[in-house]
Amino acid sequence: MTSQLESAMEGLIKVFHSYSSKEGDKYKLSRAEMKSLLQGELSDFLAGSNDPLVVEKIMRDLDENQDGEVDFQEFVVLVAALTVACNEFFIQSQNK
Amino acid sequence: MTSQLESAMEGLIKVFHSYSSKEGDKYKLSRAEMKSLLQGELSDFLAGSNDPLVVEKIMRDLDENQDGEVDFQEFVVLVAALTVACNEFFIQSQNK
Repeated sequence: MTSQLESAMEGLIKVFHSYSSKEGDKYKLSRAEMKSLLQGELSDFLAGSNDPLVVEKIMRDLDENQDGEVDFQEFVVLVAALTVACNEFFIQSQNK
Repeated sequence: MTSQLESAMEGLIKVFHSYSSKEGDKYKLSRAEMKSLLQGELSDFLAGSNDPLVVEKIMRDLDENQDGEVDFQEFVVLVAALTVACNEFFIQSQNK
């Protein structure tokens, strides 16, 4: 049986590949695939930003090895940072 | 509507808190809570190790600030590393 934690990990892998396989290197997110992932999966986060360049900025921050593509490890860094931020928001809301 | 990525992130937060809330600081995993989480959520990973001290070692590695407890940020580092490893295994199996 798959545990809740294993399901979450599997979900991260599936989401990444469902976008990264669309064009070019099927194990990396191109700029267009990253944009599509952010819009499809994190539209609530993006909606909170008024910056029209937010996707460009995220892409530049994530692409540590500067190859214009985001690999799974770079993607997981984004998800980890967002999840830590969500957790802090959750704790604050609990303590009100 | 919650996207697959948001569900995965939510799953990580829920799993952590379902164990961290059992004793002491409810937003951190004590040694006992960490052991319980590893055994309950990642038993397949632990079963692959013959090292009886594996839980102790993971705990020591994760507890960056040496306070004997694992906070959410420290926990996410473990999950990220495991997920990257799973993803590599997945890619290798696809390419066989």
